[in-house]
Amino acid sequence: MKALVLKEKNQHPGLEEVANPKAGQSEVLVRMKAAALNHRDVYIMQGLYPNVRYPLIPGSDGAGIAADDREVIFQPGIHWGDDERMQSRDYHILGLPTNGTFSEYIVVGEGQIFDKPTHLTFEEATALPLAGLTAFRVLFSRCKSQSGEKVLITGAGGGVALFCCQFAFAAGLEVFVTSGSETKIASALKLGVLGAANYKSQDWPEKLKSQASGFDVIIDSAGGDGFADLIRLCNPGGRIGIYGGSNGTVSNFSPQPIFWKQISILGSTMGSDQDFADMLAFVNHHKIVPVVDSVFSLEEGAKAFERMEKGEQFGKIVLRISQ
Amino acid sequence: MKALVLKEKNQHPGLEEVANPKAGQSEVLVRMKAAALNHRDVYIMQGLYPNVRYPLIPGSDGAGIAADDREVIFQPGIHWGDDERMQSRDYHILGLPTNGTFSEYIVVGEGQIFDKPTHLTFEEATALPLAGLTAFRVLFSRCKSQSGEKVLITGAGGGVALFCCQFAFAAGLEVFVTSGSETKIASALKLGVLGAANYKSQDWPEKLKSQASGFDVIIDSAGGDGFADLIRLCNPGGRIGIYGGSNGTVSNFSPQPIFWKQISILGSTMGSDQDFADMLAFVNHHKIVPVVDSVFSLEEGAKAFERMEKGEQFGKIVLRISQ
Repeated sequence: MKALVLKEKNQHPGLEEVANPKAGQSEVLVRMKAAALNHRDVYIMQGLYPNVRYPLIPGSDGAGIAADDREVIFQPGIHWGDDERMQSRDYHILGLPTNGTFSEYIVVGEGQIFDKPTHLTFEEATALPLAGLTAFRVLFSRCKSQSGEKVLITGAGGGVALFCCQFAFAAGLEVFVTSGSETKIASALKLGVLGAANYKSQDWPEKLKSQASGFDVIIDSAGGDGFADLIRLCNPGGRIGIYGGSNGTVSNFSPQPIFWKQISILGSTMGSDQDFADMLAFVNHHKIVPVVDSVFSLEEGAKAFERMEKGEQFGKIVLRISQ
Repeated sequence: MKALVLKEKNQHPGLEEVANPKAGQSEVLVRMKAAALNHRDVYIMQGLYPNVRYPLIPGSDGAGIAADDREVIFQPGIHWGDDERMQSRDYHILGLPTNGTFSEYIVVGEGQIFDKPTHLTFEEATALPLAGLTAFRVLFSRCKSQSGEKVLITGAGGGVALFCCQFAFAAGLEVFVTSGSETKIASALKLGVLGAANYKSQDWPEKLKSQASGFDVIIDSAGGDGFADLIRLCNPGGRIGIYGGSNGTVSNFSPQPIFWKQISILGSTMGSDQDFADMLAFVNHHKIVPVVDSVFSLEEGAKAFERMEKGEQFGKIVLRISQ
């Protein structure tokens, strides 16, 4: 079969001919229709995770047809364990250390297989798993976002951030975003957000304050010193969900507003099997259609990686594997 | 009547003759038996809160006898409001801006009055309200501490920290502490904590790690750069309750362990009327006796303030008002 293979650090994956995988006990062979990229795939290419060993077929998101003709997507998290609060020590994600979804066939555990939402094409459905799961857990399981609350989502354009927006719309929240790109802000407003600010302009916190006064829920993946502004924008009793930290260390974290405003800062990554099932039920109920930024063929894999590295996407970058 | 009066900034309170207060509608006149100091009283003396106006009778903790001979203590928080998540805008604490408990008589709202636990003397009971309430909310209402969990409480010796220890013992947790004083560490071990480390020694995090491996709950009032060590010591799925920040800003707050370990950082201050009632029921049920560091007469008020300023106390500093 054909697969995108990472052969060494910092080198884009190339299309290779590799042996077909074989299903063992309690495993399912799936003929892939589509896959989707995550930042994780780029980080793996860059060797930023511990224990990355090449050659490796990356990819955590996939949709395809199982041996019994069932149309399926995968829960990308493996061995979460029994505790809803956190993943077990055995937890890992499809595509590291085991081969991932950027190939014509894949073998996955029976427990990872879920029905593809019928209102979605394969290319839309494959955009859902990792980012949708991450968004659902941080927004609902962790931050307990409620209808009528105001939510600020930073970095609109990324897959998780856009699912946060779409899920928050569906749950009846008032949604505001930040972005460093005027183009993305325009797209987010078109999608339905009520307000936005460009974090490259000095006065972005004041702008958001004038638009929304304050936020009950804030979902952030940036960290860095802008995090102190998020704390200022957080209402008393509010929750700040953290699912990433691309701007690194916060050097100005003050305990005083945290305790005086009774703020909860809630770390979240990926999600349990229960989160995944709940997320799928929510997507099916609200007929949510993921925002797809672009579709590349498997042959164009390197181009897909380049687009992710540039960070210009608005929504998910998808690989079409078979028609 | 006699009262301790703060007359100007940074000057210890002196005993003065002032007019007796009179109870209005829905208010109760209480003859005071004992009061207790909090850091708050020193901060008020130092003019560190907004809107401090002298002369002022400070004091948030009190126990006494109401007009109907009922033995009572006070919920020190006034107008929390209807939302358990946070205090209302009208919220304030006994002793600022209204006169506090360091006097022979006080008038308080009917809703502030609760029965004194019968297993406690007035001098023990007056040690309970503000610190006990703060400890109960952060440990249980916010951090949902459970029997069998390991909890680390920083700054053992302070009133809130010691109530956290005592409440955690009663709830079946395994309790560990930090302190900057070997004397206080010895006292804490005598009280029943399983392990301790002196945060003035460089290797305190390693010492705690070797004692407890990691903590499910951490209760902190220090902040500062040691906070990053607390995050390192926090187990996956763990909660870090913050009720103070005496060491100020954290300059090395990294988002990565927060999301990867699914940590919750939960700010907490004071507590609702429900928290207060729950705390009192818990204290009565477990027959908890507050740790009293020292007892001063009202005439010795300045000495009591000095002891609080030095920070050498282990437990609450109490004022005896009448026999």
